[in-house]
Amino acid sequence: MYVSDALVKRLPAYLRYLDLLLDRGVYRISSTELGKIMGLTPSQVRQDINTFGGMGRQGYGYPVIDLKKHIEDVVGVNKTQNMIIIGAGNIGSALANYNGFKESGFKTIALFDVDSKKIGKKISGIPILDLKMMDNIVKNNDINIAILCCPLGMAQELCELAYNTGIRGFWNFAPLDLKIPDDAVCVNVSLSETLQQLSFRLKKLEND
Amino acid sequence: MYVSDALVKRLPAYLRYLDLLLDRGVYRISSTELGKIMGLTPSQVRQDINTFGGMGRQGYGYPVIDLKKHIEDVVGVNKTQNMIIIGAGNIGSALANYNGFKESGFKTIALFDVDSKKIGKKISGIPILDLKMMDNIVKNNDINIAILCCPLGMAQELCELAYNTGIRGFWNFAPLDLKIPDDAVCVNVSLSETLQQLSFRLKKLEND
Repeated sequence: MYVSDALVKRLPAYLRYLDLLLDRGVYRISSTELGKIMGLTPSQVRQDINTFGGMGRQGYGYPVIDLKKHIEDVVGVNKTQNMIIIGAGNIGSALANYNGFKESGFKTIALFDVDSKKIGKKISGIPILDLKMMDNIVKNNDINIAILCCPLGMAQELCELAYNTGIRGFWNFAPLDLKIPDDAVCVNVSLSETLQQLSFRLKKLEND
Repeated sequence: MYVSDALVKRLPAYLRYLDLLLDRGVYRISSTELGKIMGLTPSQVRQDINTFGGMGRQGYGYPVIDLKKHIEDVVGVNKTQNMIIIGAGNIGSALANYNGFKESGFKTIALFDVDSKKIGKKISGIPILDLKMMDNIVKNNDINIAILCCPLGMAQELCELAYNTGIRGFWNFAPLDLKIPDDAVCVNVSLSETLQQLSFRLKKLEND
């Protein structure tokens, strides 16, 4: 099944807006109304939802609770997913502290670091462990996602270490393109590069 | 001038790879070689660079230092840009602590928060100030970028407050689509949504 990058990015937005509708007590919504609040055409909304098996009947709109459950199932957040964070520096620590992930169905089981001063401590109740423990922790806790928050020069090596424990999902904060085997996926978030994109758009705005 | 989203995202990568080349002592590079390390075709590289005014002569390749300076100028990171962070919670604090921005040409001047327990403290030497101080700080420090790390419910209001001080660039970590005037730009980084995208890709990999 082909799913465009744009649709992959819209799926979390669907979940967010459907949550908002439920908060407001809206239990049924037409593609026109849903499109209006999300900035999409009604046909785009119908096409998006049909991609993963249609829901709702013509003229009746979508049942909000069912649609939300359906998309949660598609995204894989219908049950909690366990993660590890590799690198307990600024970004790694912040992500360990961040409560927003729990609400989205993700749980950090452990952080890993090479710094003996950090190992043994906890961040928000999550232990910082030696890299040697990774294999054991991953295998005993059904972990399939690693958040890479390590320095640039160590990212590829640590990614491979995590891959060898069985992890297949990588969220990479290091500013480099990791070499990932075909049976794994990687999503990059380079904070400095995102900021440079903003800078460019800002400069372009001033010049246009 | 029209610049595609894809090219905007490639510009920071050019800077990163050109830095890497300089570290390795490479001072001249052909579009073929540069394309090879970046995963682009030679004609794509030439087209990208020509978008902002060509450099280099046919058969001579690009001078790496000059090309890097040229792209830094295009991106607007040829001089330090001052920023503020709105919201001194987990993410805001982590970004204040993060050293990677300085290296990319961005400097955080102040954090702002509403919590009187936080106001007056410092993070990595950067003061946490009352929102009332924002107008003064922005106008006296040539600040044009605000990083929004505040709770969802306050993001739109605080964005407008920052806009009214003169700020036109917004980097938004709150998971919502801000209403931004035409003379401002906003780049969203929703950490939870990025994680949901990874989850979807991981699930798709298992099912395909």
